[in-house]
Amino acid sequence: MVGQSNMAGRGYLNDVQQIYDEKIKVLVNGRWQTMTEPINFDRPTSGIGLAASFAGAWRLKNDQEEIGLIPCADGGTSLDDWAVGGALFESAVLQAKLALKISKLSGILWHQGENDSFGGLSALYHDKLSIIVDAFRSQLDAPDIPFIAGGLGDFLSGGRYGKYFTEYNEVNYALQKFAETKPNCYFVTANGLTANGDGLHFDAVSQRRFGIRYFESLLEKKNILAPLAGEDELIEIIQNRPLTKKEQGTLLEIDFARGKISLGDLEKKLNLLNDQSSN
Amino acid sequence: MVGQSNMAGRGYLNDVQQIYDEKIKVLVNGRWQTMTEPINFDRPTSGIGLAASFAGAWRLKNDQEEIGLIPCADGGTSLDDWAVGGALFESAVLQAKLALKISKLSGILWHQGENDSFGGLSALYHDKLSIIVDAFRSQLDAPDIPFIAGGLGDFLSGGRYGKYFTEYNEVNYALQKFAETKPNCYFVTANGLTANGDGLHFDAVSQRRFGIRYFESLLEKKNILAPLAGEDELIEIIQNRPLTKKEQGTLLEIDFARGKISLGDLEKKLNLLNDQSSN
Repeated sequence: MVGQSNMAGRGYLNDVQQIYDEKIKVLVNGRWQTMTEPINFDRPTSGIGLAASFAGAWRLKNDQEEIGLIPCADGGTSLDDWAVGGALFESAVLQAKLALKISKLSGILWHQGENDSFGGLSALYHDKLSIIVDAFRSQLDAPDIPFIAGGLGDFLSGGRYGKYFTEYNEVNYALQKFAETKPNCYFVTANGLTANGDGLHFDAVSQRRFGIRYFESLLEKKNILAPLAGEDELIEIIQNRPLTKKEQGTLLEIDFARGKISLGDLEKKLNLLNDQSSN
Repeated sequence: MVGQSNMAGRGYLNDVQQIYDEKIKVLVNGRWQTMTEPINFDRPTSGIGLAASFAGAWRLKNDQEEIGLIPCADGGTSLDDWAVGGALFESAVLQAKLALKISKLSGILWHQGENDSFGGLSALYHDKLSIIVDAFRSQLDAPDIPFIAGGLGDFLSGGRYGKYFTEYNEVNYALQKFAETKPNCYFVTANGLTANGDGLHFDAVSQRRFGIRYFESLLEKKNILAPLAGEDELIEIIQNRPLTKKEQGTLLEIDFARGKISLGDLEKKLNLLNDQSSN
């Protein structure tokens, strides 16, 4: 997970049902932990991103396997901030290398461009991104690794910062062109996706849809140029996956550890859960 | 910030007033961002830790300077999990090295030991910790860097997992012994500190007090073997530091980005803030 705020995720947590699945992991301090949302806690405003439904869709096709997410996105960052050798690039490579010690790298998810949508920067987008992607692939020894880049939202020009984003169409064009010319790189449209009140960040439901598209792109190794049929049905299936007893128990423990339920309530509920398992 | 859950922080966020100060930073993706709580987001249960009031106390003595925190603590981890060359150790060293590119390293804050308080592990605590501290100092090229280790809570034996923590007194003794024998290592007592309902994690108020003690230990380069006079008064001062207009504006932007206030309300409040500044 690399890019800026819309890869980190700013959808409101309360707007969608959380995705929780013991086989969806996130890298924390070099080790895999079960994913909870928000995944990519780069700022206090971090919320729902596209990676959770992406992973959920992957799980529907890989029933017995685990998937791990490596959160490296950072809000408000430009391509120059992501330049090879800079802190963000170095940090992401280090994280990926820690993961590589225990896992296999399967893809790079990218969403970035709002901060290169003005002042003539869009004209440089394709070439700057190309250098970064080449360096990621080279430093991770993964020359063919799929690179999936999502488009910028059509709402940008009308939002709170709309006057700044004069070149977001050009960035979208550069991303699409990049995917057409660079091997194993794919473009995923943001068509039809909507924003929070800021007109800048994809809302939670849109992030869920975006994740489905990212997964379809990775699965089919192709660009996704229009919304997919059945996105919302798939999201429902992912969000409503029946939890195992162990997962239900863990979620109760989390509620307790957050002070949301008392120790007495926790024990009562855990007992209830155990009683069910003996039936 | 290294150790297990009580260094990461599990105090309930709503139990204390948040500490927000543009001059207190946290390392995110290799770059400094303004700290917000929770600082060390290792688990969904992450909350108030000791580092915020530690940094706040530091700021009272360093009015014009910035302090940065590097969150590397990881819940439920034992000394063996922290062994040199393991994922946690490697990850912490990499984070510190990213920070060293732009900053100076001033101290290592350690809290760990609950997971070495049984099965005879306490007898190995001193020597295992010594190897880890030597390796941190060597790999970070900081042979004299202060290492501050806090004690385990007296509540452990009475809590939900009390029967497991049969050797927490021995771990406390090992930590104190370690501080007495190892150069520039200091011990900070947890005397008088209290826990969440789990009898395992320091509550938010206790974490605030603990942070004050950690800072006093660093400042005076000495062990803190009893609660300090005026801890709560100092916490009040830190938590009630008057916010600058810029900080107030940023907090409003965060509320808006989280969906807590509308765009209209945000703009109204920002205008009000700006009007104040012209008076």
